[in-house]
Amino acid sequence: MLNGISKKIYLTLIPPTEEDSRSYQVRIMDSLADQGLETRMSLSVMRKLYPLCDTSDWKITVSLAWDGVCWEIVNAEAGDTSNEHYGLATDIGSTTVVTRLLNCNTGECLAEVSSYNHQIAYGTDILTRIFYCKDNPSALEEIRRAAIDTLMENFEKIEKETGISSQSCIQMTVAANTTMIHFLLGMDAFCVFSTPYAVRADHPDFIPGKELEIPVLGYVYCYPNKSNYLGGDIISGMVATELYKEKDICVFFDIGTNGELVIGNEEFLLCGAGAAGPALEGGVVETGMRATEGAVDEVHIKDEQIQIHVIGETKPLGICGSGIIDLLAELFLHGWVDIKGTLYPEESRLIQKKGDSYAVEYAPGLFFSQNDINEFMRTKAAGYTMVAYMLRESGITAQDISKFYVAGAFGKHVSKESAITIGLYPDMDRDRLISAGNSSLEGAQKALLYKEVLDDIDIILEKMVYLQYGAAADFLDFMVAAQALPHTNMELFPTVKEKLEALQNPK
Amino acid sequence: MLNGISKKIYLTLIPPTEEDSRSYQVRIMDSLADQGLETRMSLSVMRKLYPLCDTSDWKITVSLAWDGVCWEIVNAEAGDTSNEHYGLATDIGSTTVVTRLLNCNTGECLAEVSSYNHQIAYGTDILTRIFYCKDNPSALEEIRRAAIDTLMENFEKIEKETGISSQSCIQMTVAANTTMIHFLLGMDAFCVFSTPYAVRADHPDFIPGKELEIPVLGYVYCYPNKSNYLGGDIISGMVATELYKEKDICVFFDIGTNGELVIGNEEFLLCGAGAAGPALEGGVVETGMRATEGAVDEVHIKDEQIQIHVIGETKPLGICGSGIIDLLAELFLHGWVDIKGTLYPEESRLIQKKGDSYAVEYAPGLFFSQNDINEFMRTKAAGYTMVAYMLRESGITAQDISKFYVAGAFGKHVSKESAITIGLYPDMDRDRLISAGNSSLEGAQKALLYKEVLDDIDIILEKMVYLQYGAAADFLDFMVAAQALPHTNMELFPTVKEKLEALQNPK
Repeated sequence: MLNGISKKIYLTLIPPTEEDSRSYQVRIMDSLADQGLETRMSLSVMRKLYPLCDTSDWKITVSLAWDGVCWEIVNAEAGDTSNEHYGLATDIGSTTVVTRLLNCNTGECLAEVSSYNHQIAYGTDILTRIFYCKDNPSALEEIRRAAIDTLMENFEKIEKETGISSQSCIQMTVAANTTMIHFLLGMDAFCVFSTPYAVRADHPDFIPGKELEIPVLGYVYCYPNKSNYLGGDIISGMVATELYKEKDICVFFDIGTNGELVIGNEEFLLCGAGAAGPALEGGVVETGMRATEGAVDEVHIKDEQIQIHVIGETKPLGICGSGIIDLLAELFLHGWVDIKGTLYPEESRLIQKKGDSYAVEYAPGLFFSQNDINEFMRTKAAGYTMVAYMLRESGITAQDISKFYVAGAFGKHVSKESAITIGLYPDMDRDRLISAGNSSLEGAQKALLYKEVLDDIDIILEKMVYLQYGAAADFLDFMVAAQALPHTNMELFPTVKEKLEALQNPK
Repeated sequence: MLNGISKKIYLTLIPPTEEDSRSYQVRIMDSLADQGLETRMSLSVMRKLYPLCDTSDWKITVSLAWDGVCWEIVNAEAGDTSNEHYGLATDIGSTTVVTRLLNCNTGECLAEVSSYNHQIAYGTDILTRIFYCKDNPSALEEIRRAAIDTLMENFEKIEKETGISSQSCIQMTVAANTTMIHFLLGMDAFCVFSTPYAVRADHPDFIPGKELEIPVLGYVYCYPNKSNYLGGDIISGMVATELYKEKDICVFFDIGTNGELVIGNEEFLLCGAGAAGPALEGGVVETGMRATEGAVDEVHIKDEQIQIHVIGETKPLGICGSGIIDLLAELFLHGWVDIKGTLYPEESRLIQKKGDSYAVEYAPGLFFSQNDINEFMRTKAAGYTMVAYMLRESGITAQDISKFYVAGAFGKHVSKESAITIGLYPDMDRDRLISAGNSSLEGAQKALLYKEVLDDIDIILEKMVYLQYGAAADFLDFMVAAQALPHTNMELFPTVKEKLEALQNPK
């Protein structure tokens, strides 16, 4: 039996007599106190006690919700329903909102569903949304409503799949970045992107579901945020990977439109965050697209030909992040671009003049231009610089890293080899490069199922030290040096160098 | 500055800078922590922080509500409004609901208003109301709504008088009997009067105003009940009189339709409760009425004439409790009735034949009949027996009683002399007979203004021992013996005996 932030407890109570005429409420609370549980009772349960206790022959199951300070009895049901102990864990991404329904006794995941964030209607990127509702309470309410609607869509999917409604769930945990939490709570989020970056509220803690208009019996726990750019999704990632418990130094790298990085172990957690650019997610790039049906997600060059894999095995429509990284790595390894990423038209007839510059036709009629390459190089340089700079600042080398977690879909789908080849990840032992999956969701789930995680979160927040990028004078040098394939200093990427030599001088 | 269950604290915060970019929320909570206050923040306040903090130049006043376990920040306002620190204390009687608006910094009462309990529409007596909504949720909702509407009427009166709305108040405290609390919370109250007398919930504690549909910023605290007949109004009376802190033995007597009695001091609290009968409040008696305009509330017999005082100095319409007690005492002292209460028509031409029996014309055209006398004698006997029986059970004599508190309107308006003369109160030093006034309301006010009272309430509940009347074999003998004026054993009322002798043998 797990020890999470909710409980379902079956009680067989002794019916009242004139000798023992304790109230219905006190009978229940005394019985829980016997189990070491100090509780308070919600009004809705007080109202339910009669005739529930009488008609159930005083055999009832109570639902307990932790509110951050104490246990609240939030429901009472007839008979033994202690096995029907459900909770929800949600990762609110700016694009996708993923919710899991969990059996909180066993930890079994009963369903995992996802929906597009309804806020996309107000802008695909976060900034557009922030500006949409800046100083405009009714627009903010639309945005908030969109977050709730997305959750409701997930709840409906879960109910359809399992027959279990959110109203049978005691608690929900949420991990999300600072902006998403601001929107969920109905708070203006302009602060996230404007100096002095003091956000409105970063410790939402346990909020009654009712107040948030989220139909769960108890509370919604939102992961705290460390700062404007270091959101609850990263804290949640720490919990998921247990990086803060490691003896050896580990890295947690979450890269997308923004990049967040944590280096540390049980003793310290050094954090950084910065804009990486939408290029990594297929944005900016002319034929770039999200990793959905029709996206080229794998690329190989063999016998002068470009071989591709398309998501959904359909006609290619564009290229997503993992495809781009593969493409760039292959172009480089096969000498179709130089270290600066400049296309060599003489190397392949697939490199063709398009307007003023060259572009490579990676699929019939789909081109990746010199401009796309340059854009992408800047983005990957920003990502790498984040890591390199922080390693330097903390006096750690890539070889010291015991585990290098890459979070999110990126970590899951991008080829490690290709990412190292283009110099996005440091050149290190591949086994130590680990996909952390949706660590934000994993962490949310852990907070639901293991109450002690709440204490760990405080410890994590306390340990985290935020390193301001660009504060050091030589930050720009780092950035410029990283704008090469894999890096202007090839010695930093010995395995890429080897591979290159092997390809260029085949035995 | 009082230390109650709410606080208003003016904070001059340091605006955020890039060096100190703590969130709005954390700036406030840190600032309160500096004052030793661990807090959590309500969602509504998180939503308010922007633009409030910015537009107020970071000078704000926060409202804190104690929720029974910790302080919650329930409001934030621009500037220094710490002097506008308001709270409400309410006594919910089955007939009258009295509410005070208090300055929670100073304890000053800014307004006291009262309204008839809207539940009267469902029955003037509690039992009728209980039966009206028994096992009928929609009727129960009507009764609950009536309680809320009564409170709203009081809030409106207060706002009219002071300009201060309930929504500017942080907390409200409520003291009431068990049934009234059940109705306020929307709980079936049949349990109060039916075996085995286990009520639904007797520790409502702090309930969010919002949940109760009571428009205060924070919580509604309801006094706990000890048992079905020993309600929060009695616990509140203990707090008001501080009987539980006394070294010497005191008595707390609340008599109306029901009677509740507590005998004790800092060491013990022996309690009893029972039906007294509506006669004490002017019910049953033919021309009886409540103590409102037109009621005879004082009676003297002088020179064979009955002199009366009428509330509102108008034409008399009937007689209320204090008038009845005076009347009966005077009839007895002047020999118009004997020790059994039997009218002596030969003693006054005001005693006239009415139907089968006699009646005394206490005001022109208004009669108090033999039947009225008999009814009232039973009621007063029930009241006295409660006291006498419990004194005997605890081995205490009337002379041991340091203070004898009589609660409510009864204690306030009834003549001590008359009440002793008819044997309703024990014959004791008049200075020790003290009117406790509306001690239920006083106690509610104390819980609002002095947070340590909450601990005292736990102590009181623990000390209280409930004595079941009628359990002893000789209870009925007690009752019968008390059905005389003042008592069958005149030695128990030495001052009455003296007075009687003085009157009958004038020097």
